[in-house]
Amino acid sequence: MKPNTELPGLSEYDGGKEMLLRVKHDGELIQSILELATKKGIKAATFTAIGALKRAKLGYYDQKNHKYREITIDSPHEMASCVGNVSLSDGKPFVHAHVVLADERGNTRAGHLMEGTVFAAEVLLRRLEGPRLERKLDAVTGLWLWEI
Amino acid sequence: MKPNTELPGLSEYDGGKEMLLRVKHDGELIQSILELATKKGIKAATFTAIGALKRAKLGYYDQKNHKYREITIDSPHEMASCVGNVSLSDGKPFVHAHVVLADERGNTRAGHLMEGTVFAAEVLLRRLEGPRLERKLDAVTGLWLWEI
Amino acid sequence: MKPNTELPGLSEYDGGKEMLLRVKHDGELIQSILELATKKGIKAATFTAIGALKRAKLGYYDQKNHKYREITIDSPHEMASCVGNVSLSDGKPFVHAHVVLADERGNTRAGHLMEGTVFAAEVLLRRLEGPRLERKLDAVTGLWLWEI
Repeated sequence: MKPNTELPGLSEYDGGKEMLLRVKHDGELIQSILELATKKGIKAATFTAIGALKRAKLGYYDQKNHKYREITIDSPHEMASCVGNVSLSDGKPFVHAHVVLADERGNTRAGHLMEGTVFAAEVLLRRLEGPRLERKLDAVTGLWLWEI
Repeated sequence: MKPNTELPGLSEYDGGKEMLLRVKHDGELIQSILELATKKGIKAATFTAIGALKRAKLGYYDQKNHKYREITIDSPHEMASCVGNVSLSDGKPFVHAHVVLADERGNTRAGHLMEGTVFAAEVLLRRLEGPRLERKLDAVTGLWLWEI
Repeated sequence: MKPNTELPGLSEYDGGKEMLLRVKHDGELIQSILELATKKGIKAATFTAIGALKRAKLGYYDQKNHKYREITIDSPHEMASCVGNVSLSDGKPFVHAHVVLADERGNTRAGHLMEGTVFAAEVLLRRLEGPRLERKLDAVTGLWLWEI
């Protein structure tokens, strides 16, 4: 039985509610999930992922100055954890993901995932059906948070 | 379409099976999930969360002496991962969560989440329907474990 | 109401779609999930787990030399996060899991989970119904990846 997919690397389960994505080698993780959401018309979802990245850019949000600091990871790491969600921003799918990376000794770096170049990655995304989930600028934090 | 909620920050999906909670700024994460479980009559659930905390108290369980050591995190951190569940203890909802935090350089601290003051947090909780899931003191570990 | 289980420590929810497993003390985590998958005929699933391990063996995949380096963790750690999936390899269930561990000061080690001796562990596994999910050797990475 061949998977019924429209996207390379995608296999759908439970009537399309659950999606497994094998992200392509050298693909960018956030963009790959965004492309999946866009092509499948996903407006709200949650996901987890594991695998390995060639390099990544992490973010730490400065809670006082309301700015992201970038943390460059320029060497191969295991992706020990990736947890995230899909919502809407300006009516279009938006991916928010946090990640924990591990080096060859098991030492870790973690934060908001800005960019990650995939060595290999297995994503499970679960589509949510219900109220519109739109992000809006929150004055208190300076972040685009769910408008609920 | 406005979310159908009884709690501020809550939006329900898939007929109430999946719940997204935007925890309020300065709210306490464990208490916020506990309040959600109590108000919605949730007796068993699993959840993940990402976001950022202003400060936190972590726990490490000493497997020999059967006591928790507390680890105080008194500065802002990204919440790179939070995985947990809801079960019953003495017939009332009980929240068990573990967390990975990351500082401005991406360095991490992790453990059992005792308390976390929220800067911003996005929780996805999935309600489980089935057998009663009650915790009971386990003599071997000294922990309150699922009685299954 | 007693849980309807065939395996010690297993409780099923939502008509068997969601499974909670309390892994037995001194059990091996990967083998315990594999045993669950085998006995219940699970061919595709995703899971998360939290708890504590007595010791573990982690892996870091060398992306150039295509070999795993082993990282031995020979002291008790909190299992701050465990994310994984079940697929098929040579037609039999195969467990792939990544883990983040934390010591008594909250310091972390993470990576691919090769072996973990359980002090206490709570696993939530969600069964997926759909296309066959088989692993196949991928020439580019040297890893056994999902054939989708």
